[in-house]
Amino acid sequence: MTATERLVIIGGDAAGMSAASQARRMKNADELEIVAFERGHFSSFSACGIPYWVSGDVAERDALIARSPKEHRERAIDLRMRTEVTEIDVPGGRVRSRDLASGEESWTGYDKLVIATGARPVRPALPGIDAPGVHGVQTLDDGQALLDSLSRTKGRRALVVGAGYIGVEMAEALLKRGYEVTVVDRGEQPMSTLDPDMGRLVREAMSRMGITTISGTAVSKILTGDDGRVRAVATDDAEYPADVVVLGIGVEPETGLARAAGLPLGRHGGILTDLAMRVRGHDNIWAGGDCVEVLDLVSGRERHIALGTHANKHGQIIGANAGGGYATFPGVVGTAVSKVCELEIARTGLREKDARAQGLQYVRATIESTSRAGYFPGAAPMTVKMLAERRTGRLLGVQIVGREGAGKRVDIAAVALTARMTVEQMTTLDLGYAPPFSPVWDPVLVAARKATAAVRKAGA
Amino acid sequence: MTATERLVIIGGDAAGMSAASQARRMKNADELEIVAFERGHFSSFSACGIPYWVSGDVAERDALIARSPKEHRERAIDLRMRTEVTEIDVPGGRVRSRDLASGEESWTGYDKLVIATGARPVRPALPGIDAPGVHGVQTLDDGQALLDSLSRTKGRRALVVGAGYIGVEMAEALLKRGYEVTVVDRGEQPMSTLDPDMGRLVREAMSRMGITTISGTAVSKILTGDDGRVRAVATDDAEYPADVVVLGIGVEPETGLARAAGLPLGRHGGILTDLAMRVRGHDNIWAGGDCVEVLDLVSGRERHIALGTHANKHGQIIGANAGGGYATFPGVVGTAVSKVCELEIARTGLREKDARAQGLQYVRATIESTSRAGYFPGAAPMTVKMLAERRTGRLLGVQIVGREGAGKRVDIAAVALTARMTVEQMTTLDLGYAPPFSPVWDPVLVAARKATAAVRKAGA
Repeated sequence: MTATERLVIIGGDAAGMSAASQARRMKNADELEIVAFERGHFSSFSACGIPYWVSGDVAERDALIARSPKEHRERAIDLRMRTEVTEIDVPGGRVRSRDLASGEESWTGYDKLVIATGARPVRPALPGIDAPGVHGVQTLDDGQALLDSLSRTKGRRALVVGAGYIGVEMAEALLKRGYEVTVVDRGEQPMSTLDPDMGRLVREAMSRMGITTISGTAVSKILTGDDGRVRAVATDDAEYPADVVVLGIGVEPETGLARAAGLPLGRHGGILTDLAMRVRGHDNIWAGGDCVEVLDLVSGRERHIALGTHANKHGQIIGANAGGGYATFPGVVGTAVSKVCELEIARTGLREKDARAQGLQYVRATIESTSRAGYFPGAAPMTVKMLAERRTGRLLGVQIVGREGAGKRVDIAAVALTARMTVEQMTTLDLGYAPPFSPVWDPVLVAARKATAAVRKAGA
Repeated sequence: MTATERLVIIGGDAAGMSAASQARRMKNADELEIVAFERGHFSSFSACGIPYWVSGDVAERDALIARSPKEHRERAIDLRMRTEVTEIDVPGGRVRSRDLASGEESWTGYDKLVIATGARPVRPALPGIDAPGVHGVQTLDDGQALLDSLSRTKGRRALVVGAGYIGVEMAEALLKRGYEVTVVDRGEQPMSTLDPDMGRLVREAMSRMGITTISGTAVSKILTGDDGRVRAVATDDAEYPADVVVLGIGVEPETGLARAAGLPLGRHGGILTDLAMRVRGHDNIWAGGDCVEVLDLVSGRERHIALGTHANKHGQIIGANAGGGYATFPGVVGTAVSKVCELEIARTGLREKDARAQGLQYVRATIESTSRAGYFPGAAPMTVKMLAERRTGRLLGVQIVGREGAGKRVDIAAVALTARMTVEQMTTLDLGYAPPFSPVWDPVLVAARKATAAVRKAGA
């Protein structure tokens, strides 16, 4: 008879529960006991779906739950909800947890440990930040609180702080609910994950949709009314009346437990792992999802990217390894897509400033084309920007702003970056062509041709 | 002063005129004279667009013309319309042409020659094939003749012979015009560019749209009425009444001139070229577009693929080389996308029978997923089939049948095939994820995971 090992997982969302599920597929309960701790009310939910629940596109909160605690338990995963891990004792091989209802604490020993503590929203220490009517959108509880707040609020002025992915998606959600939406952002242009010349296109499109974007501006204070609720947001120069405020500033790795346990953290505060997602220096501890840093295959540096698709991949790889198999996560190329109403925004690889920071010299090409053959109904304009390394012509990054059919074209570049293709190699890629799908030269190929010419022109 | 060279081009469509344009960009008229011969009425038109003109999606014929003869002439390209080249005299370095209006013939010498004679529709020698009401759809003239015929025809029964790309696109076009559409095809399932299990999905979807597909059946005869017009199509077993018949059987390389001139032809009747698109054994003759065979990078064999996107690439490469520059066309991976009403159909790489023919052992994986997050409005089902080489796990091919958002996902696989990735490498591709664009695991990644498991299971 095999001795039963115990796998303990901290965090019951995408990375943690994917790890649990994959480990369970590989070993049954006689061989491997799996205990998972989640401090919240929900397991395995899609945080990325919250804006679409707020907008009304997704009618029910529970549609965002991929697998309920009950479903996990039915697969012999001992998922303990509303139970917070408060300490990792690495030398002792155990974690201390507290039942949030009863306040009772206990220790649980582990043979193998998975840290999947996720990320927490950046919440600047501003006066008024905790006032009623000011909402984050990180958890389903946050989403519910925002929806409750919207239903209680008569005014129709919404202010979103931050113009990154969450900010612009929430701007769309609130616009769809009939709010007058203003976005205040510190960046030079919205979507600072793009170069400013492409971010400008996003701002212009948002403006045409009726969303006001105030860029290059920091919020200094949140002002409240006599009832204590938010009534406006102040910057150094102005006041913006607001009936509801949504914080979409971004997130940072939730690594307090790991830091206290002496586990290695990187420059962005995320846990550092090896390619098998093991915490560096620890054979029996893995970490994945929004709490880790990942290798950027283009720059060769670690980055922090909070994204459900990475968390799921990490979990699957951790589960395979913790279950006695073998799998690795080679890294990312930094792909992201987003949507504001009809506008599709995508990026992969390096921005100009990333390339400069890494000592890479580059050329750039920006082209305008259409999503379908120009004569085909619904052909929508699309701008593609491409960066290539000077001399070698290696693809460094692509950014796309357009409409239907624009966003997922970034996948072509994501695969090309992974394969370390040159832009000249990309010019002959055999991409799908038919008039309803693409012009005879796909926009990505047009950009690759122009980038190739720029590489030649820049010379040695 | 530089001596003026003369570049002669046979064929005024995509490949020929792209070559002319690119050569003109590289050399001005003092250095390079460009003479192009086109026997038809139109230059640089989109044959792929004809079904959408017939359907009414594209209102005007001229929308399908990328560049008119006049526009070419304004760029110092001596394009002679309605002038057919009747002979290539390779030792003499000249071509004989005939003005189709006057019947006059003359010889034109060349320093460099481009053969871009395109393809001709397969037109089986059936009784009745030339009857009024039977139409091909290769040229704009063909399209106009079909539209004229439709406007004169009272009956609403259309029969399409062939269920390949042209056949299914014409079926959609006629359905949109309010016809009762029957497709008769020799293949086991429609879309023989897919494996039969995927073709079956196409047939089922077409049937739900109200298109009748008769598979595994050859047309033996076209029956005409007392007025001489088509009235039905006969197979060995049955008769199908038809007021109009469209031939969508496919095309074959138009290489009569090249054959007569002793130029090398391949197994499929297409001209054989080197990587710079030079006709093998001839330093000053290039060929491209629908009249050549191209290297399939996955199988390592030559294929004939008539597709506007390849023709444009060939032309651009030929023009660069003929203009004194340097460019190559490495080959294709066999990507194609098509649409029948809401159905999107895509393929790249090898089918099962291609792999077998090449001695490749393979595993296969078929998965069902959705185009967007399952909870997101408009999430549409999609079936992805993936083939991987046994033991090495190298990706061999992908086929996709789905709805909106399905077709262009094949580009991910097209790039991965070009980079010779394994299906396991594909499982960690950093593809764009957000709920309106993809489930958290993109369908292509789900297929790659299943294919990876199949490779492992098949063992050594």
